Amino acid sequence: MTPTNSVPKAVPDQSVELDPDAMEGPGYGITDREAIKQARQQTQTLGQRPGALMVKEGALPPRLFLISYDESTLTEAEYQNYDDLWASFQSHPELKHWIDVRGYGDIGLMERLRDDFDLHPLQMEDVLGDFQRAKVDIFGDNRLFLVSRMTDFTSDLEIDDDQLSLFTGPNYVLSFQDDYEDCLDSLRARLRSNFSQMKRKSSLYLAYALTDVVIDHYFPTMAAIGDYIEGLEERIFSERRERRMLNRILRIKKDIVRFRRLVYPERDKISEILRMPEEVMPDEIKLFFKDAYDHAMQALDLAESYRENITSLTELFLSDQSNRMNEVMKVLTIISAIFIPLSFVAGVYGMNFQREAPPAGPNPLNMPELYQPWGYPAVLGLMALMVVGQLFYFWRKGWLSKQR
Amino acid sequence: MTPTNSVPKAVPDQSVELDPDAMEGPGYGITDREAIKQARQQTQTLGQRPGALMVKEGALPPRLFLISYDESTLTEAEYQNYDDLWASFQSHPELKHWIDVRGYGDIGLMERLRDDFDLHPLQMEDVLGDFQRAKVDIFGDNRLFLVSRMTDFTSDLEIDDDQLSLFTGPNYVLSFQDDYEDCLDSLRARLRSNFSQMKRKSSLYLAYALTDVVIDHYFPTMAAIGDYIEGLEERIFSERRERRMLNRILRIKKDIVRFRRLVYPERDKISEILRMPEEVMPDEIKLFFKDAYDHAMQALDLAESYRENITSLTELFLSDQSNRMNEVMKVLTIISAIFIPLSFVAGVYGMNFQREAPPAGPNPLNMPELYQPWGYPAVLGLMALMVVGQLFYFWRKGWLSKQR
Amino acid sequence: MTPTNSVPKAVPDQSVELDPDAMEGPGYGITDREAIKQARQQTQTLGQRPGALMVKEGALPPRLFLISYDESTLTEAEYQNYDDLWASFQSHPELKHWIDVRGYGDIGLMERLRDDFDLHPLQMEDVLGDFQRAKVDIFGDNRLFLVSRMTDFTSDLEIDDDQLSLFTGPNYVLSFQDDYEDCLDSLRARLRSNFSQMKRKSSLYLAYALTDVVIDHYFPTMAAIGDYIEGLEERIFSERRERRMLNRILRIKKDIVRFRRLVYPERDKISEILRMPEEVMPDEIKLFFKDAYDHAMQALDLAESYRENITSLTELFLSDQSNRMNEVMKVLTIISAIFIPLSFVAGVYGMNFQREAPPAGPNPLNMPELYQPWGYPAVLGLMALMVVGQLFYFWRKGWLSKQR
Amino acid sequence: MTPTNSVPKAVPDQSVELDPDAMEGPGYGITDREAIKQARQQTQTLGQRPGALMVKEGALPPRLFLISYDESTLTEAEYQNYDDLWASFQSHPELKHWIDVRGYGDIGLMERLRDDFDLHPLQMEDVLGDFQRAKVDIFGDNRLFLVSRMTDFTSDLEIDDDQLSLFTGPNYVLSFQDDYEDCLDSLRARLRSNFSQMKRKSSLYLAYALTDVVIDHYFPTMAAIGDYIEGLEERIFSERRERRMLNRILRIKKDIVRFRRLVYPERDKISEILRMPEEVMPDEIKLFFKDAYDHAMQALDLAESYRENITSLTELFLSDQSNRMNEVMKVLTIISAIFIPLSFVAGVYGMNFQREAPPAGPNPLNMPELYQPWGYPAVLGLMALMVVGQLFYFWRKGWLSKQR
Amino acid sequence: MTPTNSVPKAVPDQSVELDPDAMEGPGYGITDREAIKQARQQTQTLGQRPGALMVKEGALPPRLFLISYDESTLTEAEYQNYDDLWASFQSHPELKHWIDVRGYGDIGLMERLRDDFDLHPLQMEDVLGDFQRAKVDIFGDNRLFLVSRMTDFTSDLEIDDDQLSLFTGPNYVLSFQDDYEDCLDSLRARLRSNFSQMKRKSSLYLAYALTDVVIDHYFPTMAAIGDYIEGLEERIFSERRERRMLNRILRIKKDIVRFRRLVYPERDKISEILRMPEEVMPDEIKLFFKDAYDHAMQALDLAESYRENITSLTELFLSDQSNRMNEVMKVLTIISAIFIPLSFVAGVYGMNFQREAPPAGPNPLNMPELYQPWGYPAVLGLMALMVVGQLFYFWRKGWLSKQR
Repeated sequence: MTPTNSVPKAVPDQSVELDPDAMEGPGYGITDREAIKQARQQTQTLGQRPGALMVKEGALPPRLFLISYDESTLTEAEYQNYDDLWASFQSHPELKHWIDVRGYGDIGLMERLRDDFDLHPLQMEDVLGDFQRAKVDIFGDNRLFLVSRMTDFTSDLEIDDDQLSLFTGPNYVLSFQDDYEDCLDSLRARLRSNFSQMKRKSSLYLAYALTDVVIDHYFPTMAAIGDYIEGLEERIFSERRERRMLNRILRIKKDIVRFRRLVYPERDKISEILRMPEEVMPDEIKLFFKDAYDHAMQALDLAESYRENITSLTELFLSDQSNRMNEVMKVLTIISAIFIPLSFVAGVYGMNFQREAPPAGPNPLNMPELYQPWGYPAVLGLMALMVVGQLFYFWRKGWLSKQR
Repeated sequence: MTPTNSVPKAVPDQSVELDPDAMEGPGYGITDREAIKQARQQTQTLGQRPGALMVKEGALPPRLFLISYDESTLTEAEYQNYDDLWASFQSHPELKHWIDVRGYGDIGLMERLRDDFDLHPLQMEDVLGDFQRAKVDIFGDNRLFLVSRMTDFTSDLEIDDDQLSLFTGPNYVLSFQDDYEDCLDSLRARLRSNFSQMKRKSSLYLAYALTDVVIDHYFPTMAAIGDYIEGLEERIFSERRERRMLNRILRIKKDIVRFRRLVYPERDKISEILRMPEEVMPDEIKLFFKDAYDHAMQALDLAESYRENITSLTELFLSDQSNRMNEVMKVLTIISAIFIPLSFVAGVYGMNFQREAPPAGPNPLNMPELYQPWGYPAVLGLMALMVVGQLFYFWRKGWLSKQR
Repeated sequence: MTPTNSVPKAVPDQSVELDPDAMEGPGYGITDREAIKQARQQTQTLGQRPGALMVKEGALPPRLFLISYDESTLTEAEYQNYDDLWASFQSHPELKHWIDVRGYGDIGLMERLRDDFDLHPLQMEDVLGDFQRAKVDIFGDNRLFLVSRMTDFTSDLEIDDDQLSLFTGPNYVLSFQDDYEDCLDSLRARLRSNFSQMKRKSSLYLAYALTDVVIDHYFPTMAAIGDYIEGLEERIFSERRERRMLNRILRIKKDIVRFRRLVYPERDKISEILRMPEEVMPDEIKLFFKDAYDHAMQALDLAESYRENITSLTELFLSDQSNRMNEVMKVLTIISAIFIPLSFVAGVYGMNFQREAPPAGPNPLNMPELYQPWGYPAVLGLMALMVVGQLFYFWRKGWLSKQR
Repeated sequence: MTPTNSVPKAVPDQSVELDPDAMEGPGYGITDREAIKQARQQTQTLGQRPGALMVKEGALPPRLFLISYDESTLTEAEYQNYDDLWASFQSHPELKHWIDVRGYGDIGLMERLRDDFDLHPLQMEDVLGDFQRAKVDIFGDNRLFLVSRMTDFTSDLEIDDDQLSLFTGPNYVLSFQDDYEDCLDSLRARLRSNFSQMKRKSSLYLAYALTDVVIDHYFPTMAAIGDYIEGLEERIFSERRERRMLNRILRIKKDIVRFRRLVYPERDKISEILRMPEEVMPDEIKLFFKDAYDHAMQALDLAESYRENITSLTELFLSDQSNRMNEVMKVLTIISAIFIPLSFVAGVYGMNFQREAPPAGPNPLNMPELYQPWGYPAVLGLMALMVVGQLFYFWRKGWLSKQR
Repeated sequence: MTPTNSVPKAVPDQSVELDPDAMEGPGYGITDREAIKQARQQTQTLGQRPGALMVKEGALPPRLFLISYDESTLTEAEYQNYDDLWASFQSHPELKHWIDVRGYGDIGLMERLRDDFDLHPLQMEDVLGDFQRAKVDIFGDNRLFLVSRMTDFTSDLEIDDDQLSLFTGPNYVLSFQDDYEDCLDSLRARLRSNFSQMKRKSSLYLAYALTDVVIDHYFPTMAAIGDYIEGLEERIFSERRERRMLNRILRIKKDIVRFRRLVYPERDKISEILRMPEEVMPDEIKLFFKDAYDHAMQALDLAESYRENITSLTELFLSDQSNRMNEVMKVLTIISAIFIPLSFVAGVYGMNFQREAPPAGPNPLNMPELYQPWGYPAVLGLMALMVVGQLFYFWRKGWLSKQR
């Protein structure tokens, strides 16, 4: 037994540095590539027997953590060896345990876990498949299989989501995730604290606490998206830099749509838990899940708000685009309307009608203006008047001021 | 015991002075900043134990009010000291009490209230969190925990919402709000009046009355939004001032969306109350809640109406924008269509074809018009004819009159 | 007792003379001013005790009508004095009575009616408030409180709606409305007729008959709106008169939306009646309400049809707007494309390159065309050719014919 | 008794010859004139007693058909006289009968039918009203009143719908329709065939069969609409003929919307039948109605498909419209961009700056180009170069090729 | 008995080679021609007796396969003769059988199958009709009739769907499909494997496994569509090749809509199976169907994702289209704005005002500039200045750089 003490940060660093120009890469980020990736990966498992375990390429080698506690004690260790963990778990039936498996890269270990903890092959397939929507199943002797999806907002404006799979047992929770990093450190810190009421409660409470932490982590994602939307709104009217503005708007819309698709099943899952009979889910714990339900609803409310905002920003952008064309047209119209008539006047006095047509005698009606001493200044004055008149007309129409 | 008599206005001043140009500030007000703020604040509470009490920065120090009454008497006081209030409350079990806590800035007091009145930590967290959707929970011995959201329409076109949390007990209602100002003064005035039937009814009726006042205050918000929409409609076609018109429209749309999101849970809450069993909610009180339900439905009906109107205004604005471009195009087209052909005619007679090419003899076909005595007047006449023809064509097409 | 016989028309005159240009006034009629008015009026009642009776400003003084009948007799009278009516009503318990109160302008009378007929204060408040959605409540001893909304399509394209409130009793129906005019005359005429089966049936049938007449009057409203839509469709493409076309379309859309909002609750009300137990609503009467339900559904079907039509008309209008701009552009393009090249040719031959540069000798390459005897006619011919070529090109592109 | 044997075609001719230019008439066909007509007609029946029978203007005189059959025999006749039919029906209680009434133009006959077959006045009113949505009512002794709507796609692109009303009895089905022509001939042919299992089954099966034939006739309507949509798609990009394209699209959309509005109630009707208790609707017949339900669902699926297609076609049309404007703009821009600079160059060399200003001596800087021997050819060359440069620029931008 | 061993590929080749320009054919592919085809085919069956078997034109002659197995053995054969198959099936009641019928082209055989396996005529009609939505029916002695729709994404961007109809019996599954090729080979391979647990389970498990394979094959379809969408996104902004871009987008949208319409009924079918009583569907098998349900939900989630993406791409395309017009306008405006004023200046100095009007003496105010030694260079300089000024103005407006 080789417990190694890791001391995680109590509150993870959630601030995401968003480079507003991060998206200038080759892709446009509007299609939901995660969804397409999922379709491709599910295609690869085609023809497998239902319940067959398959490790995805690039899966990390599993790390095994065990936290064993009761009201007064807590031991916490990482095990290099599953047998050691199993022995430790078996030898303390009086304690509550959280067996925390991170990484799926060892098919043999996965099968042993499945068999030792009496899990259904289909459930284990859901764990490793890593594409399961949030859900809850009752199995065996009123045990629960819970799937949550943890979200993260990455610096390139994508929502990254990982699966957290939980199996409850009489005195333990068995959790699976495919990454070493997670958002559960704050929960571990709370467990370690001497005054944690969590230690007094049943293992179902631990399952609740894990679900709750996942839901609470939806808010940093939402906050980061909100920050970005706020930034978009500020820049939507900026004079010069509107490159790919709609692209950005649609990109963040995709994230919100994706977020909703992840969180709606979570809400439905908890709603199903709240309808479970007392023997599966005691009322005392349900009270807590009711709280988690409220939080999921708040996250969804936020997502709906954002979605409406995105719609408004899109409308505004398109109207602004139309406005800009309008302005181009106005410049063209003003310049044309001023100079084309002037050119015409100049053209008239560039005509070559002859006053003296030698054989036929003088033609005094042919452009007498050209021979007046004030002819040229008068024409220039006429032109100036025309310009002033036009400018007045356009000013009264409000075309000379910027209107948006 | 230091009762201080405050004499609130019977009817609060609800008229909002809306500066139509109030929004010229840096922001555009289209994103729902309250929602983003909520996401940020919820992010900050990350890692807290469920049920942990946390006072938000800037929370006001609590003020404590107690109104004790029965059919014939009423005493009303503000207490500087919670012990005094508790003593007064405990010593009159025969009276009904409304304990009114305003401001959350004292965590110790909040914990004492939680413990003295036997509240669940999660409920108390909902109270202080201040972001809870309207809801109702049954707890303890058929007691109710009710959350309402009070709305206000501020002068900068935002909907400001505050949370009113109520706990009912056998002979009391305990209310929490985070502000000193509220919309409940009219209710207090009614309580004080000698003929108030409220004093004869149970404390559940008081809970109803508080909920009802909150719902009734949705209408001033709706009226203010309605006034603004009416103003928008009048100005949408005005010749000169359309700066940021769409911006204004979308801003008010955001408010309506926000309003709906606040009021829908309120309606669902009351609908849940109406389905409660007789022992929790007597039929006599349900009759009143049914009335409150009708009012909530009316408020939602109004919001739906407004939303449709906003959609129509947006369509109208976009069509008007398109119309304005059309008009710019028409001006350009009319001027170009008139003067470009004229310039061509002038250009023709500005050509230098020579009648006398000295070595080769006369070229009588080269521009003989230039040598006619009536050449110039004839060309001018031709030009005038062209202008008249064009103007007639455009007039018949209806381009010369303004069309919208 | 002063019965005054009024002889109403059997079929009210429903034809609405719609002036197609009626809307040229200052307002645009797109916002639902009735809704805004409602919000404002509800704001004014703020702070009132639930159930408090308040007479709206401008309410008409009540007129009292009583129709008493059984299978063989019918007496009908207007009473100047409530005591007379009450005496007459009380002295004939063997008859069925319809007490018809029009106008709310006497608060004392309203309170007497409330107390004499044992109505709930909240119900009476709903009656006088005049903004109640259609609904049905069971109260007292299986009595019903029914609210319907009567619609009218006014000549300025607005839907005017009034509230009809009914209370049923063992042998009477008590009806309230705030106007002297109503749409119930045809029902009165049927009652008066000797062969009316209505007289044989219970007072619940009278309540049904009143509800049914209200629903039947939705169709003239729908017919008038339909006529207007038909007119809009005919004029949408007319060459000259499209002023405020979209405005008209959106205005009528607002009416349809309003209509739906009025009628949906009516349908839900009847659906609730159909689910009532036999002791409240006998199956025999339910059969008739089922028929009324079908009619309400037909009215809603019509409204949905109209709504789709309005959407199509809007799309068509916007496309037509775009088409008109296209046509403006084509005129500009055709004229520019023809004359700008011609002007260029003229400009070339207006250049002053000198054939004879005195000191340097002749420059025979400088514009020899100018000295050819056929120079001018040749250039004119070239220009004519260019025009013909361009016209052919545009004709082949189909730009010369009108396309919509 | 004067049976006249009519020998209807086994499979009706469903092919509709659609003239693609059929719609060039005065109307635009976008509004649902059937709906408006319905509103107008319902307005005319205003003030009628519920259940009053009223024959619509232009109703055809009734024709009466009776088919009587059992497993082995079948007699089929048209009766000129209702008494004969009634006698024949009464005298054969051991047979099953289909009494087929076509045309409502005889109010007395309708009342006799109502009384003889013990129908409810409201039902009879629904029959004659001819505007009833598809529905099913149970009445009397587990008898059924079924309304179906038969659709037809007319050659002027309208959906024509007629009502088929059925009353079931122990050994008969009584059917009403307002037209002599119907879509039931194939059913009659099946009945006449010796091997028809229909003859062995109960009269409820006949009611099913009639309903099923109506539903099956939705498909020819859908096929005709589909053909038209296919044609629209092919012509949407055609170079020349796009007159009123959007008009056509919206017109067919109206038909699809109308179709859905007709068929949704049909589906709900059958769904209600499937939930009826065994004593009203035996399971054996339900199995067949389940099949009809599947067909109704398929028809609705098709309608949804078409609706999506129409939306896509509309988007495509609008984008194409925008593209065409784009092309107009390109032509204008290319021509202007080429010739305006050229004209400028020509204009420069048309200036009259004097090389020799007599009193002041020579001005050698004034337009020396005009005096070079190669001046004119050089300028022409420069112009040619400019044209080539511009064309290259536009070619690289892809403006010279058609892009859609 | 002539068993022929076919050795299908374990994993079918799902990679679809999509030629991005495949759609340049005559059609535009936006309308759902499969739906129109269905309407046409259903029209042809008009007038048929419900339950009548009709073989569609072009139906393939049936091929008959039988796989018989228990835990330890498996025999697999194709039969040329139905009698042989039936004999073999009958003689092994202790084995489980999968009777696999491919091709419907022999009406007699279909009738024998219907009669031998005791199928309802309506079900058999559904099988041959080949247009049945996914559904499940319970019939006979708790037997199931299951319809699934298998999808395929063809190389010309169409979703091809085939029907798989299953009948379960005590020890067999009878499957029908109209094609020889299917997506079930992987299942056959699994059956053949020695370790297959499928062989141990009941025949209901085989029905599950068939349904599951069909659902799993939705993912390759989704992956292919996803690939295409990804390609579309990359090319939407490409400079030159945007021909029929919207066409492509709408085409793939049609596929997604079609896919959803196929898969929603599948989900509902499984949901119905999950609600079946234990005696029809044992809980053990339900667990597997629950897994299939999750997969169907995932497929629908993907489809929703794609649909949102398509909407975003459409918006982006339309905005880009508008942008391109904007750019055309800018080129026109810049060139016009620069050269039209220049031409005017040139025009001014092309006027012929005479300095010396012989009889009247010198007119020194007439265009003295023309006689200055620096006149021409000064005017050229002025023109250059104007150009620089304009370019600076446009550069500052950001019109000279490309903005999208």
